[in-house]
Amino acid sequence: MINKLITQIKKTEAPIVVGLDPTLKMIPEHIIKSAIEEYGETLEAAGEAVWQFNKAIVDAVYDLIPAVKPQIAMYEQFGIPGLAAFKRTVDYCKKKGLVVIGDIKRGDIGSTSEAYAVGHLGKVKIGNTSCYGFDEDFVTVNPYLGSDGVNPFIKICKEEKKGLFILVKTSNPSSGEFQDQMIGEKTLYQMVGEKVAQWGEDCMGDDYSYIGAVVGATYPEIGKIMRKVMPKSYILVPGYGAQGGKGKDLAHFFNEDGLGAIINSSRGIIAAYQQEAYASFGSLNFADASRQAVLDMKEDIATALSAR
Amino acid sequence: MINKLITQIKKTEAPIVVGLDPTLKMIPEHIIKSAIEEYGETLEAAGEAVWQFNKAIVDAVYDLIPAVKPQIAMYEQFGIPGLAAFKRTVDYCKKKGLVVIGDIKRGDIGSTSEAYAVGHLGKVKIGNTSCYGFDEDFVTVNPYLGSDGVNPFIKICKEEKKGLFILVKTSNPSSGEFQDQMIGEKTLYQMVGEKVAQWGEDCMGDDYSYIGAVVGATYPEIGKIMRKVMPKSYILVPGYGAQGGKGKDLAHFFNEDGLGAIINSSRGIIAAYQQEAYASFGSLNFADASRQAVLDMKEDIATALSAR
Repeated sequence: MINKLITQIKKTEAPIVVGLDPTLKMIPEHIIKSAIEEYGETLEAAGEAVWQFNKAIVDAVYDLIPAVKPQIAMYEQFGIPGLAAFKRTVDYCKKKGLVVIGDIKRGDIGSTSEAYAVGHLGKVKIGNTSCYGFDEDFVTVNPYLGSDGVNPFIKICKEEKKGLFILVKTSNPSSGEFQDQMIGEKTLYQMVGEKVAQWGEDCMGDDYSYIGAVVGATYPEIGKIMRKVMPKSYILVPGYGAQGGKGKDLAHFFNEDGLGAIINSSRGIIAAYQQEAYASFGSLNFADASRQAVLDMKEDIATALSAR
Repeated sequence: MINKLITQIKKTEAPIVVGLDPTLKMIPEHIIKSAIEEYGETLEAAGEAVWQFNKAIVDAVYDLIPAVKPQIAMYEQFGIPGLAAFKRTVDYCKKKGLVVIGDIKRGDIGSTSEAYAVGHLGKVKIGNTSCYGFDEDFVTVNPYLGSDGVNPFIKICKEEKKGLFILVKTSNPSSGEFQDQMIGEKTLYQMVGEKVAQWGEDCMGDDYSYIGAVVGATYPEIGKIMRKVMPKSYILVPGYGAQGGKGKDLAHFFNEDGLGAIINSSRGIIAAYQQEAYASFGSLNFADASRQAVLDMKEDIATALSAR
């Protein structure tokens, strides 16, 4: 799957992943109204609105990008109907040829991590039949529980030819509270990054490992360091756009080959029509606004990469 | 909710939580067969089998215990039908008067943690109607992202009078890989524990805070230290039984008042009929075996507490 991701990044010339993280506030009124007319003021209506919103955006941008990253929390807030919209989104994006990164940040003790890995990347045997639960291509993983919380995910990735992005340094303001603490001469995130590199050694695609890392765009200097610590790991970089990360900050996350990183933007793309720069599209044409925002992001990153 | 939990612990004289973490291997053949007959070899059949298994165990033990802890990963492995069984289990246990601790170990950047908190503890507004997603009483939270990943959960707990157990020191063998690292004179788990105590100060029930911690039974010496670091935090203690924690190890986790900790057992209770000690019950009477295992666990802990 890491090879497919890289092939699609090269083909689209866009090291970009669109975060499908909808809240009801981002969804145009006409979609919500129509869903409530059909399902009443219920979780089912929210799930339907989220799905219709996602589908329109995916239809408008899928030819420009290699991958999407639905954030499962945004679906889980609507209970079972929300998670059904998550699954529908995953399936639709895969049908459109996109690589799907499930942003699930799971992680637990061994036997429990195995259940998460099976549910999101692998298959479970029921009687004599193998059934897939959510079936994403990559997932994000929280490393706080150490190797035996991560290994079950790696095992399923090997079996299914899928991949991981492990949290190293997250994009939020308080990420340093624990992650930046010094352990001897190293920070905790460096220590985790070294582990990611080590876990990834045995999991190589053609040029990169399918065990990647998450490092926030909001910490470009850390990106520079971590790029060297994990030379063969793909870095998933959240925090571009709405969270404050800028194109020029991103060059550090890439290798000399122009590969090695994929930049996520969520609100900046999917809620583009609510921003001043794209307001002229209007809420009826929200998906066209998203397309334009992808084109602009692509140019911003290309400029940053060619200027280095 | 922390007051309700403590009242029920006193009433049942059992600081015990039963972990409802079923795998298909634990579920008796007759339940699986019947589910497959109804739904075929599908995820729906797995969800139905899990639900029937849980319901029988809850019916057999609910009068002995204050709380249950369904581990969501074990449901998530069966996709949407599995999560529907999770929701059904949560609702049923609440109807039976049990406190429900959702073992979800979520944690993300602020806006995303808020969505998890809303989905599992709070409510979301759809039109003019407030809808609950999963509606557990407590959830477990992963602290790797720092305060702004935890604060949205605390905010919803205040609004809804619910509670948290934050991962401090987990029960698995490799938990020390990051959690035991020395940061100056302290370990990372101590540092997280101090944060838990601090977050909890502003969230007091009558005698204990509703911001609790997870510390594994497999590390009793650490339990002793953390008990002092977080005197007002309830400690959820996993790892008893199948993972190797024993009754005599548990006394350290309690305060002088005999309160302050609640011990989880999952496989040890729900798969009791598969163990030598309870094999005579047979697979048809699996729920009676679970009841006996709860009674034995209760005695084991009472003995340990009275011996100190």
